[in-house]
Amino acid sequence: MNKDLNKPDLGPSERIDDLCRNDLKLIQNKDVFCFGMDAVLLSTFAKVKKGRKVLDLCTGNGVIPILMQDKNPGTEYVGLEIQEVSADLAKRNVLLNGLEDRISIIKGDLREASSLFGEASFNVVTVNPPYMNENHGLVNPESQKAIARHEIMCTLDDVVCQASACLKLKGSFFMVHRPKRLVEIIATMLKYHIEPKRMRLVYPHLGDEANMVLIEGIKGGHSQITVEKPLIVYNDDASFTEELLAMYGMEGQGNEI
Amino acid sequence: MNKDLNKPDLGPSERIDDLCRNDLKLIQNKDVFCFGMDAVLLSTFAKVKKGRKVLDLCTGNGVIPILMQDKNPGTEYVGLEIQEVSADLAKRNVLLNGLEDRISIIKGDLREASSLFGEASFNVVTVNPPYMNENHGLVNPESQKAIARHEIMCTLDDVVCQASACLKLKGSFFMVHRPKRLVEIIATMLKYHIEPKRMRLVYPHLGDEANMVLIEGIKGGHSQITVEKPLIVYNDDASFTEELLAMYGMEGQGNEI
Repeated sequence: MNKDLNKPDLGPSERIDDLCRNDLKLIQNKDVFCFGMDAVLLSTFAKVKKGRKVLDLCTGNGVIPILMQDKNPGTEYVGLEIQEVSADLAKRNVLLNGLEDRISIIKGDLREASSLFGEASFNVVTVNPPYMNENHGLVNPESQKAIARHEIMCTLDDVVCQASACLKLKGSFFMVHRPKRLVEIIATMLKYHIEPKRMRLVYPHLGDEANMVLIEGIKGGHSQITVEKPLIVYNDDASFTEELLAMYGMEGQGNEI
Repeated sequence: MNKDLNKPDLGPSERIDDLCRNDLKLIQNKDVFCFGMDAVLLSTFAKVKKGRKVLDLCTGNGVIPILMQDKNPGTEYVGLEIQEVSADLAKRNVLLNGLEDRISIIKGDLREASSLFGEASFNVVTVNPPYMNENHGLVNPESQKAIARHEIMCTLDDVVCQASACLKLKGSFFMVHRPKRLVEIIATMLKYHIEPKRMRLVYPHLGDEANMVLIEGIKGGHSQITVEKPLIVYNDDASFTEELLAMYGMEGQGNEI
């Protein structure tokens, strides 16, 4: 392990990005999967109370627990990742930011999460899963990027099933996904007794279809959902909206994300 | 029946409103239920091709078929209404606008719709149903307004069950409802094999929670939904947005709806 944490050894396809929050940094590997806006939106949408224990499924390079621990003081995280390269990256990112006491990264299969950690062992589960279920015709289904984007190693059903098994009763489930799969998302949450309670649609521009959905469910919750105000990404002049900039910790700092 | 259709006899609580479209007019009764923005939004959201036969459930004073026949040339309508006073009003509204050849109003129970009209007898079903399912503590559950607003004479399950029974395979179902019941709406549509395909959330202001949802389903359709651009009702200065004014046929005419 590199002794100077501010200048860690980087692999050939790696780079360090500034997370724009309290000097948080993130090593990313462009051959695997770099975090996108969805991770930033999910880590803002998900609210966690002090003392709560959070499981982040499909944690990738660990960006979600790293951002969330900063926004939710006094919370603890386990990140689960199936890909060796990503899990290794996530572990180094935790060390790089000195967060070993708050975040543990485990390499393992999401489909075994409740056996790994025990049933009803978390207050909160977060997940930014692979979005795409049209896997036929994939050029390289074993590639690391394909596994991060397509339902190759886990399906939506696996994700929600395991989230529910790992959650305590009345625990919260937070997910970012594609609106075109919203009906399936809601049906699957209901199947595993996670009641959708709060939803926010993300629209690139005010005149566009939604291209992301943020959803919160409560295990064993009562029926009734709140559809929060629309989240608009770009102004008419193609600059980022103030709300979006604020999520990146860049309010009033212009347009470069 | 009054011979001068432009000056019909009006009951004590009745008035005539201008629908702002091709001289369409509507007699309303303030003791029953006057049409609101939801009817205007639904009649704009629902698209019907020439030659198609439409059933409007819970038709009230007939405003939805009256608006829709104007926006969708060459379409035919049956409006079903359980309340005598409203059904009578709807019949007089059809005559007032000279639409007897395009719209029939039937007084009857929604729960018997498929027996009344036959299974799979319509291409399209529209409905602006009672929204509220918290019926306990109602001061007067037999009042005409309470029946229009609360699930006293029919539940969401009844509405979707009968819509599905009356629809041909691949026929369209259009409904306006409250977003807080969205999960139940989607689950009920799936229960009766109406796949939600298109949805639009209505937000009073850009910074508000959604307070209406417009949803289209296809009987026997394939999974995948489009969440259309947000519909914003008011500008920051409390004037109506141009899109909203256009739905009332009042684009560029200012702020009085």
